[in-house]
Amino acid sequence: MVNAIRIGIAGYGNLGKGVAHAVAQQPDMVCAGIFTRRPAASIEPVNNKVPVYPMDAIEQYADKIDVMVLCGGSRSDLPEQGPALAKWFTTVDSYDTHAKIPEYYAALDDAASAAGTTAVLSVGWDPGLFSINRLYGETVLADGATYTFWGKGLSQGHSDAVRRVEGVSQAVQYTIPSEEAIAKVRAGGAPELTTGEKHTRECYVVLEEGTDAAKVEEAIVTMPDYFADYSTTVHFITAEELAAEHSAMPHGGFVIRCGNTGAGSRQVMEYSLTLDSNPEFTSSVLTAYARAAHKLSRSGQHGAKTVFDIAPGLLSPKDPAQLRKELL
Amino acid sequence: MVNAIRIGIAGYGNLGKGVAHAVAQQPDMVCAGIFTRRPAASIEPVNNKVPVYPMDAIEQYADKIDVMVLCGGSRSDLPEQGPALAKWFTTVDSYDTHAKIPEYYAALDDAASAAGTTAVLSVGWDPGLFSINRLYGETVLADGATYTFWGKGLSQGHSDAVRRVEGVSQAVQYTIPSEEAIAKVRAGGAPELTTGEKHTRECYVVLEEGTDAAKVEEAIVTMPDYFADYSTTVHFITAEELAAEHSAMPHGGFVIRCGNTGAGSRQVMEYSLTLDSNPEFTSSVLTAYARAAHKLSRSGQHGAKTVFDIAPGLLSPKDPAQLRKELL
Repeated sequence: MVNAIRIGIAGYGNLGKGVAHAVAQQPDMVCAGIFTRRPAASIEPVNNKVPVYPMDAIEQYADKIDVMVLCGGSRSDLPEQGPALAKWFTTVDSYDTHAKIPEYYAALDDAASAAGTTAVLSVGWDPGLFSINRLYGETVLADGATYTFWGKGLSQGHSDAVRRVEGVSQAVQYTIPSEEAIAKVRAGGAPELTTGEKHTRECYVVLEEGTDAAKVEEAIVTMPDYFADYSTTVHFITAEELAAEHSAMPHGGFVIRCGNTGAGSRQVMEYSLTLDSNPEFTSSVLTAYARAAHKLSRSGQHGAKTVFDIAPGLLSPKDPAQLRKELL
Repeated sequence: MVNAIRIGIAGYGNLGKGVAHAVAQQPDMVCAGIFTRRPAASIEPVNNKVPVYPMDAIEQYADKIDVMVLCGGSRSDLPEQGPALAKWFTTVDSYDTHAKIPEYYAALDDAASAAGTTAVLSVGWDPGLFSINRLYGETVLADGATYTFWGKGLSQGHSDAVRRVEGVSQAVQYTIPSEEAIAKVRAGGAPELTTGEKHTRECYVVLEEGTDAAKVEEAIVTMPDYFADYSTTVHFITAEELAAEHSAMPHGGFVIRCGNTGAGSRQVMEYSLTLDSNPEFTSSVLTAYARAAHKLSRSGQHGAKTVFDIAPGLLSPKDPAQLRKELL
């Protein structure tokens, strides 16, 4: 493909594989390299024509990649890789530690502004598409209330917390939006609901041999921050059941804005996602924003950017006249 | 309010009144004038401190208004007013004749570029927020299908068509999305559905005295373009029933994008609106985009713009750092 956007993938876990798949679906992109800390031979690219390179030589490929999609984790990978790679590449990442976004933004903005690159952070669905809908909601319906519900979905952080309980061999945790709370919100009246009232939690746990199930259950449901404020159900299952029934990564959720206009008309805006694969969807959003990052970078709009700074049209392979004609 | 955005309202029907209400809900805007072709004394502003001016002297107020919100109709008002007023004002409008958008865009772009103003066109929910969701949907899930459903809602164009049937005194028409079609779409498999398969139509008709109801019904359900391709139900009611039960203007609808990622994971993105008042909601969207138009104009980004060209953050009264902290 002539003039295709050359995408690099930094980190080849679930997210990186998802980006490789998503790039293959886009009409104007090629996957130009996978960068990994693992031995190159251990990587099986989705498309085996894509070269695999060592992460520690990544800056040598600065002129071979238009946009580097950072597919590492928010806890330890991105805070370091983001600013480091923005020196060499226009980047997109899915940094999702909400409380630390301002700090991460500042570090990226410094690095990208100095280097003349564009660094798009916190792309995905939350933060990402959900954030955009929270913004449109509160701005259009200024007199109203916004509700975000997550699930039904597998929560990595809560699954990890369950796995740290003594006597737990393996575990997954699903966050489930409360049907009752959603119905209340849709019915209007702007109810006040805590995160705990909006969701229930369900754990599927494989015990280590000889462990007291009642003790494990008690340790889970009373765990502060993670479970104490929720209605939590714990199911004990076998390792075989866990492998057979709980290895997919579904997720999703709702952003609902209810507001009043005029002399009291009730208006409801609702956005929802139902995802078979959470990481693959996040990868697809990252890939669409990689196109926007490339356009921003080429037009000299450097520094850190979020989804709030990026006009919808920049995501599309279609030109503005075609978009107006076909989609407006 | 110091430095408040001074909003002008051109045309004071349902849409104009809605803008007056919406401006009152926004923290950083004032309504600085209502412009009308009717006698000023016949206008009752929502806030009676707002001055009412004659439309034919509107250009005299160019330095008193930051953004003029055009609240006329798409058929005859906007094609003329849009380019004419863009010579004097930064404008926002809800032009919704989909097929003629490219032509209207070109006329506005010429006028606004020459005048150094910004003209934001086709703002509302469809075109508008629905268009944005069609764009995000097809770009993120490149392998998939998009479905737009409208309703349940009162359709002005179809109501007018029924009123033109001989023997009809008054009428309203509701467009109703087919539950069956929505369920098919959500279930996946990307079914092919015509607009007629996606919607049914319901008419409430008041007859002129001595009219043959069966003949009217036949004329309605067989009307080409409007009803022939739909399942249409006609109810005959009295003028009193029409006034009591069918004077609100509810509307809404869905944009659903279903797609596949990776090795076949099914992903569904869904956007929906449930509106007690269609014109008041459109007015609220116009008002939020008036803020964006003002920011674009002040930063020298002149010419015609659509919702595809406007970054979400520009709609908000919050600054970018606050948005990142609170909403991302």
